[in-house]
Amino acid sequence: MREILLSDVDDIARGAAILGAGGGGDPYIGKLLAEVAIERHGPVPSVDIDEVPPDAVVVPVSTMGAPTVGTEKLPSGHEATAALRALERVMGKQATHLVPIEIGGVNSVIPIAAAAETGLPLVDGDAMGRAFPEAHMVLPSLIGVSCTPMVIVDDKGNTTVLDTVDNRWAERLARSVCIEAGCSVFTADTVLTGEQLRAGLVAGTMTLAHRLGRAVRLSPEPVATASALLDGHLLITGKVVDVDRATTGGFARGHARVEGIGGHRGSRLTLSFQNEHLVAERDGEVVTSTPDLICVLDNETGQPVTTEGLRYGNRVAVLGVPCDSRWTTREGLRLTGPRAFGYDHDYRPITAVPNSLGSKSLGDKR
Amino acid sequence: MREILLSDVDDIARGAAILGAGGGGDPYIGKLLAEVAIERHGPVPSVDIDEVPPDAVVVPVSTMGAPTVGTEKLPSGHEATAALRALERVMGKQATHLVPIEIGGVNSVIPIAAAAETGLPLVDGDAMGRAFPEAHMVLPSLIGVSCTPMVIVDDKGNTTVLDTVDNRWAERLARSVCIEAGCSVFTADTVLTGEQLRAGLVAGTMTLAHRLGRAVRLSPEPVATASALLDGHLLITGKVVDVDRATTGGFARGHARVEGIGGHRGSRLTLSFQNEHLVAERDGEVVTSTPDLICVLDNETGQPVTTEGLRYGNRVAVLGVPCDSRWTTREGLRLTGPRAFGYDHDYRPITAVPNSLGSKSLGDKR
Repeated sequence: MREILLSDVDDIARGAAILGAGGGGDPYIGKLLAEVAIERHGPVPSVDIDEVPPDAVVVPVSTMGAPTVGTEKLPSGHEATAALRALERVMGKQATHLVPIEIGGVNSVIPIAAAAETGLPLVDGDAMGRAFPEAHMVLPSLIGVSCTPMVIVDDKGNTTVLDTVDNRWAERLARSVCIEAGCSVFTADTVLTGEQLRAGLVAGTMTLAHRLGRAVRLSPEPVATASALLDGHLLITGKVVDVDRATTGGFARGHARVEGIGGHRGSRLTLSFQNEHLVAERDGEVVTSTPDLICVLDNETGQPVTTEGLRYGNRVAVLGVPCDSRWTTREGLRLTGPRAFGYDHDYRPITAVPNSLGSKSLGDKR
Repeated sequence: MREILLSDVDDIARGAAILGAGGGGDPYIGKLLAEVAIERHGPVPSVDIDEVPPDAVVVPVSTMGAPTVGTEKLPSGHEATAALRALERVMGKQATHLVPIEIGGVNSVIPIAAAAETGLPLVDGDAMGRAFPEAHMVLPSLIGVSCTPMVIVDDKGNTTVLDTVDNRWAERLARSVCIEAGCSVFTADTVLTGEQLRAGLVAGTMTLAHRLGRAVRLSPEPVATASALLDGHLLITGKVVDVDRATTGGFARGHARVEGIGGHRGSRLTLSFQNEHLVAERDGEVVTSTPDLICVLDNETGQPVTTEGLRYGNRVAVLGVPCDSRWTTREGLRLTGPRAFGYDHDYRPITAVPNSLGSKSLGDKR
């Protein structure tokens, strides 16, 4: 992908929402913003990690908050650029590139809008290879890159600049500001040099999102196609029979129960989420856990179902998708494994169902 | 007062804690910091408002939080200066003077410590003429001066810079950061030019605090002396029989009941506070309300009793003291009157008890 055209945005949004593991926010509004920005300013140049000069100043721009709020509290479209400009003033230098902080609904399209608006090229990658709910859960944390200076801009026009002793404190203070400002803000933070991109990003995820979104749109068997592209493992196909969701502590948290249909009748999958899906238990057993991706797709269309979009009656296929391998190192798991979210168990590799759709093996992945 | 000597600090702290209307934080720790700083760096030059050149950059430095926490979570002594230096970097200019944001225990001695440490002169005045619990409740709000840029520094070393659309948002975001950081932080904010001091400050309050603290220490009748100096009205002398206090929303909030003794036997006074005393009701009737000062003194020694220091059995004299007249204007009352704190009644002038100690009239003050 050399540039992102108006016609690409829809596919990228769809693919990114699948890769967002239920989180990253509903991409609909962000997609509109990106489309308007490209219409107005032209296509967005996309560059590979390897093309970025070592001294480049690469700035992730994103939204932060509870996606349940993000779908109701609409941005003006200029918040991301406002956050970027404020960060540039704090750094005393200009951004040379933008990049998504995560692959996930709105947070993969907002950087497209900001890139179109500012004329900056967008790096093809992201700092998670999925979406995680908290600001310090990024690969740059593993290589000692600070999330701060972090700029937070809200819809009122308030700007907050954080400079913290570690990335966990950046998350804590940013979350408190985010909650007070109404649970949906824009941020610019975790600046990387070109030299740090290889270790600090997952390469090519915007291209992957584009390919995935396009394939799902065109395929006669979208779930199988998505699963094959992602090396995914089917956890269940079923019907959502219960959703228990609350917006607390600045996140959309809750559980959903899926009852198996077709070949999976009799099975039951419970999803636990904090913005993103974190743990999937099938018939009482953990079959996928963070940092691996739990992706919920509409069983007919392959469309991503985000955690705030889950509804009673949804017919879904749930896939377990292996995360970037850096997350399953000891340091990676300390940051994003089940215990980092308060679960009382260790990370467990994905356990597919027998006759798993699009999966090569029937057993454990790793 | 031309300069603040080591020997002055104790009297200033005592006087300021009386003028703090129960709030501003216990001055004990701040007093030690100021004494150490003066011992190390020498006396602090004190300048009158009229002596400050119009283009001066006058910076208030203070603590923010719940005084219940401030007495347990000790500062290193360099936080105020760290906040000042960070603010200077944000402003792109250097402070020429420091000033207390309020007259109240710790917040009147911390600026002395910072002035000694930085060598900057301290302006004789403050932005409230008392202490109020919230950041936007300052005279500069009445003349359109912004509280931001506001720098918040915590004990961990985290720095937050706020730039908000109004002063109420500065308070809201700062309070959320303050709470997350542990309810006791240091701030530098609400910068004034020399030209703005007359409208933005109450003049001479550090000198007043010094005189008051000294008089109370030396007088054989300290409560009567304090009352005379402050044009105060005695609300009750009595014994604290109940204190109901919680640290919630970042403040020390609660109620205290005082049962009359001596000539006031049979009367009962209820104090409501949010860091500072806000409303005093005697026998069911409001007898003093914010923005007037409600000052609780030890009935024997005249020592100030802060809201976090109130204990069952304290023998106290409670004074109603008229606030700076700008607070009882319509704009002033909108910002700091009873309704600004959620009380369902308007401001009521002070109603002293008959035979009021040190008060010239027996009835209403205004």
